[in-house]
Amino acid sequence: MDYFGSEVTRLIEKLSLLPGIGQKTAQRLAFHIIHMPEDQVEEISSAMVSARKNVRYCACCCTLTDRELCPICASPSRDHSTIMVVETTRDLAAYEKTGKYDGVYHVLHGAISPMMGIGPSDIRLKELMTRLKGDVSEVIVATNNSLEGETTAMYISRLIRPSGIKVTRIASGVPVGGDLEYIDEVTLLRALEGRTEL
Amino acid sequence: MDYFGSEVTRLIEKLSLLPGIGQKTAQRLAFHIIHMPEDQVEEISSAMVSARKNVRYCACCCTLTDRELCPICASPSRDHSTIMVVETTRDLAAYEKTGKYDGVYHVLHGAISPMMGIGPSDIRLKELMTRLKGDVSEVIVATNNSLEGETTAMYISRLIRPSGIKVTRIASGVPVGGDLEYIDEVTLLRALEGRTEL
Repeated sequence: MDYFGSEVTRLIEKLSLLPGIGQKTAQRLAFHIIHMPEDQVEEISSAMVSARKNVRYCACCCTLTDRELCPICASPSRDHSTIMVVETTRDLAAYEKTGKYDGVYHVLHGAISPMMGIGPSDIRLKELMTRLKGDVSEVIVATNNSLEGETTAMYISRLIRPSGIKVTRIASGVPVGGDLEYIDEVTLLRALEGRTEL
Repeated sequence: MDYFGSEVTRLIEKLSLLPGIGQKTAQRLAFHIIHMPEDQVEEISSAMVSARKNVRYCACCCTLTDRELCPICASPSRDHSTIMVVETTRDLAAYEKTGKYDGVYHVLHGAISPMMGIGPSDIRLKELMTRLKGDVSEVIVATNNSLEGETTAMYISRLIRPSGIKVTRIASGVPVGGDLEYIDEVTLLRALEGRTEL
């Protein structure tokens, strides 16, 4: 497929390394990049290299950040005694977007999955346990509502319970705007089990 | 949204400049890039900058390439007397993938669109007319089957006809594997008009 000359072909090839970017999308992106202002291309390119170089894990909550402590862990206005445990930094971002949660987080970078050979020691659980030695009143487990997420939640609750710290799990049920007719049975049963008084 | 620290936020922002990459996809790409091997990130980044710097238009067919003449125009094994006119370099790539066309191309970089204020002088028509002074036996118009593509095809055929060079248009009809039941009426009529003897 070298009908463009090697530079274009190389760019397409390199862009295909990114997740969810196939041959067609890579081609579309490549042609766009070639037509972009040169300084914009340089900005994207340097943002990539510099983020890859400087981003590391927050020393406290293990999220991705370019500082020793992430902005959330460093903020005095957050409630540091409430820790929400999430699987990925993207899940953290999702809760931050609600703008209503003022506790802190702990990012596991994965979930326990015997099928995939991921055990408790492969995710950031040790770091979580270390944090619990401080002044913590509640751990909210917000792992995904999947087999792995549920397994991880169960494991965490058993691990923490002896310490007397309150462990909670985010609710499972019908999503807002969800039409009962189209919701699967398991979710419907979960919603029934988790019903609250009006 | 600066809960990651500025490096991650900046990368997400810069990636969102690319077409079809929204906030969510940019975030997914950014986290992937941060976890990629450092040399791979540098390769993608330098491919972008270098392609943007070195890619230009082929002096003959106006496609994008990093040489004076693109590999197709420079190839002695192609039939240089047959020119296929396409709207974009992506369309050229689509026909090259068939592997069956051995003529050369001419890339217009657009189509005539009175609605969008794009006239004949805004696309690479002058360059096409210059090429026709050479030894050309057929011009195949392969612009899109849209209002703009059809307008452009019509315009080109009127422009070239006086010179006596054969001008053809790619066929319009039912796509291979297409089920008649689900094909729109205009296409069905086109297919009927364009019927050929068996």
